[in-house]
Amino acid sequence: MLSKNQTKFITSLGKKKYRNESQLFIVEGVKVVQEFLLSAIELDSLFCTEDVEASYLEYHPEIITEKELSKISNLSSSNKVLGIFKIPKPKKIKAKGLILALDNINDPGNLGTIIRLCDWFGIKQIVCTPKTVDAYNSKVVQSSMGSLSRISIQYLDVEKFLKETSLPIYGAVMDGKPIHTVKTNQNSILVMGSESHGISNNIIDLILHKITIPKHKASVEIDSLNVATATAILLYEFSM
Amino acid sequence: MLSKNQTKFITSLGKKKYRNESQLFIVEGVKVVQEFLLSAIELDSLFCTEDVEASYLEYHPEIITEKELSKISNLSSSNKVLGIFKIPKPKKIKAKGLILALDNINDPGNLGTIIRLCDWFGIKQIVCTPKTVDAYNSKVVQSSMGSLSRISIQYLDVEKFLKETSLPIYGAVMDGKPIHTVKTNQNSILVMGSESHGISNNIIDLILHKITIPKHKASVEIDSLNVATATAILLYEFSM
Repeated sequence: MLSKNQTKFITSLGKKKYRNESQLFIVEGVKVVQEFLLSAIELDSLFCTEDVEASYLEYHPEIITEKELSKISNLSSSNKVLGIFKIPKPKKIKAKGLILALDNINDPGNLGTIIRLCDWFGIKQIVCTPKTVDAYNSKVVQSSMGSLSRISIQYLDVEKFLKETSLPIYGAVMDGKPIHTVKTNQNSILVMGSESHGISNNIIDLILHKITIPKHKASVEIDSLNVATATAILLYEFSM
Repeated sequence: MLSKNQTKFITSLGKKKYRNESQLFIVEGVKVVQEFLLSAIELDSLFCTEDVEASYLEYHPEIITEKELSKISNLSSSNKVLGIFKIPKPKKIKAKGLILALDNINDPGNLGTIIRLCDWFGIKQIVCTPKTVDAYNSKVVQSSMGSLSRISIQYLDVEKFLKETSLPIYGAVMDGKPIHTVKTNQNSILVMGSESHGISNNIIDLILHKITIPKHKASVEIDSLNVATATAILLYEFSM
């Protein structure tokens, strides 16, 4: 049974401010919780309904009712189990492999999709501007489907980071070179901006290789691709 | 001012059943409505708030209050204008160019994103199984951002369609040939299934060219990509 204070604390983790204070975040649902339990991310506490208790005995779960679970859940239909995990401590960024830099991506579904893409293509490091949506937001956690547990994501001053790096910097813009004509480098940084605002002014000047995804010559009316799909195509090209 | 009956009718268009009966659908917001007004899709009626009336005079808008608009709007924050448009009549499918076949894609955001991708890559024809989410669902309309007005989308018996076509059939599967090693054909059909169920059993046997997006050799835990991002990468490869 959940106390009032527990309920209050867990629901507070829906807000970035309280996640930052406590350095904790929520993961929900049988499949996604399982992926986090098997990952390097540390568990703080686990809540599950009685019918699945047997699966989680080693994690000393607290048994709660469906009704209690739905109270603390961020999902439209809660699903058996909710884990509170510790936000991993930032690691030193290695100048190796492709690093994805996200400039003010604010849609949580897009960030979750991008994290899955990185997992697929073996990209281990994402850096984000502080205005990019929080990776421990529940929508990002759920849409990244466990990939979040395998990727290092850091919020930092991306402009400063780009100024200090020795890696070549690529960035997606509307009027860049078609990506298939550009020689890509295994060790580099790829900057993606939001689809409404593109890459910020303070960052765009730091990009040496401006690239673009060519559109069909007859497609004049459409002026941008969704940022997750654009990232998909570029990461695919970098992985080739 | 909206009558009760008008309000009731317009909100009924949120349901597929009533869209099918009336062959009408809703488009909202200044930008997206504008794209539809400039397209070949026929307007049935237009509702807007007084402050933007001047922009729509030629369409004989009905002026409504913000409050009335929010009542008939499907958006979390309604935006000045709502148009009711006629669902275009199905056209005969031409065996030319790449045709995208969608097998039970049920997320409206994914379908909207895929429609934008088709617009970007100059793909004019999409065929969908009847269980695929309705393209005139408001979430699809809004996330396709006007691209829906430029692409022909038809719901039909995809199995029968594939049996009768003379075009080569490609399909995305987990254990297909890596897409960059496969010769693609300008005139062909690409079948995409849902990420949870893949391509249906009755369709998979009709696919001659089974293709896949190679993942990084170390990425063992992740077992699928979001269908919109997978479609992005495959359409890009077909467009090259």
